[in-house]
Amino acid sequence: MENKITALFKIKYPIIQGGMVWCSGWRLVSAVSNAGGLGLIGAGSMHPDVLREHIQKTKQATGKPFGINVPLLYPNMDELMKIIVDEEVKTVFTSAGNPKTWTKFLKDKGITVVHVVSSSKFAKKCEDAGVDAVVAEGFEAGGHNGREETTTFALIPQVRSAISLPLIAAGGIATGNAMLAAMALGADGVQMGTRFAMSSESSASDEFKNMCCSLSEGDTMLCLKKISPTRMIKNKFYSSIEEAEARGADADELKEILGRARSKKGIFEGDMNEGELEIGQIASHLKRIIPAGEIIDEIVSEFNRTANAMAGIRL
Amino acid sequence: MENKITALFKIKYPIIQGGMVWCSGWRLVSAVSNAGGLGLIGAGSMHPDVLREHIQKTKQATGKPFGINVPLLYPNMDELMKIIVDEEVKTVFTSAGNPKTWTKFLKDKGITVVHVVSSSKFAKKCEDAGVDAVVAEGFEAGGHNGREETTTFALIPQVRSAISLPLIAAGGIATGNAMLAAMALGADGVQMGTRFAMSSESSASDEFKNMCCSLSEGDTMLCLKKISPTRMIKNKFYSSIEEAEARGADADELKEILGRARSKKGIFEGDMNEGELEIGQIASHLKRIIPAGEIIDEIVSEFNRTANAMAGIRL
Repeated sequence: MENKITALFKIKYPIIQGGMVWCSGWRLVSAVSNAGGLGLIGAGSMHPDVLREHIQKTKQATGKPFGINVPLLYPNMDELMKIIVDEEVKTVFTSAGNPKTWTKFLKDKGITVVHVVSSSKFAKKCEDAGVDAVVAEGFEAGGHNGREETTTFALIPQVRSAISLPLIAAGGIATGNAMLAAMALGADGVQMGTRFAMSSESSASDEFKNMCCSLSEGDTMLCLKKISPTRMIKNKFYSSIEEAEARGADADELKEILGRARSKKGIFEGDMNEGELEIGQIASHLKRIIPAGEIIDEIVSEFNRTANAMAGIRL
Repeated sequence: MENKITALFKIKYPIIQGGMVWCSGWRLVSAVSNAGGLGLIGAGSMHPDVLREHIQKTKQATGKPFGINVPLLYPNMDELMKIIVDEEVKTVFTSAGNPKTWTKFLKDKGITVVHVVSSSKFAKKCEDAGVDAVVAEGFEAGGHNGREETTTFALIPQVRSAISLPLIAAGGIATGNAMLAAMALGADGVQMGTRFAMSSESSASDEFKNMCCSLSEGDTMLCLKKISPTRMIKNKFYSSIEEAEARGADADELKEILGRARSKKGIFEGDMNEGELEIGQIASHLKRIIPAGEIIDEIVSEFNRTANAMAGIRL
């Protein structure tokens, strides 16, 4: 198969591994890229020197294309971008900010730029800013999320109508069936975060991965809407946020409860009570931690099997 | 095409028109059934004598199968069920209650029973209760909604794994592409509410239909979570709820702000400021009010066109 996404990134399958805090270092990224997808280093949780190390290790571990996700709300942005250019990274996914801020700079250096959005309005801004492709991410996705709460099912067709750029669907997508569904809705490819956060090569703690495997529907919730909407597992820390929000706590109080480095504490260090455990709704559908390469193989098999089963269906 | 859903209801297309308050009377129901789908009378907003009238008028307007949606939280349930049996209605969709309460009674009368759920847990309870099929409805749907906030993309595969009953997907589905996507996720058919609420034959007011046509993404929101989670348009009434919830108002205060008959005031009587305007997220993707028969034709064309376009895609 060849389409806009495989051609843009020079990859075998239009499957992107979402760049995630505390999960997607060089091990995961190189495993995904070696298996024919596009691995993304999650720069959000990395100091500049750590990012440089992960880029170099990724290059040693794979000759295949890979990229970096850069949440634009972090400090040190000039330094991060300088490293990305120095290290000759070919693909950058930007998120959590204005697509205009860095697109021209990166494009001028010959870098492919993709921006992550949660609405058609911002997808159009991406087109105006000159990005090469858009990721549209629904309400069901883990971690930071849009204020409009538009789900993948509602979002993808609307973004598809709004822009002509290559479109990558994200949020709730973890299987080949879901990939096929996203493409029926108008996507050219998919980005999966949760599925790869729960892989052998993910740098998340075993405690976090095991907890993700034990989830039931409804065990994640979008909260912190007065600060920045975030989907996380309903643990002890979440309960304190929930209690504060129910009684009308303001942004300042919520920021105080949140404190600092909660996602590191939870995802990376394995504190299942006090950590902020960011993961998507679809985690409750996943029960096994397997290598990223096997995940890609499963997705491909599921996609083809379901496509075959549906090939004859017409109304 | 023939599948579990067309066989169960003896209809041409596995497309159900959701039974909705103030939208789905005999005109809409008969139009959908005449076009090859399954129309459902929305009993939720009907006094018993009004329901009887709508059943009789539907029978006069179509010889095709139709059904009734009964939200089990309403009063007069004994009287409504007696009318349904007296009038020899063949299909009942129950919602907003325990599937055990009425399933045996209805099945003993030879009536096909479907129950609406928002989780795999309740889907399993439906299977235990002996229903004939399940509607699984995601967070993006309009009106009353589940507490777990699971979206259609995350919900359908999980319900599919949990039960072997025929499965109807709902929430965010308004086009043939979305129908194809839902079936890729494991559904046997789809239920569409929003799309048919915005049809010529819908008994909603013109003011409501026109407002639905003018929506942008993010213009509906799920609120009233301390009473019963409900998705509605962000109008003046919604703002008063939003303000109260942000400062931590309790269920009693919210019930007082809500008052009575708000959905009638908004949807049926056309008060766009003070009414409760229940509609799904996908409304912002829809810009035209057309007859229900044309809607079915469009869905069928879109489904087949997209199925053809995707027929050759394999990874």
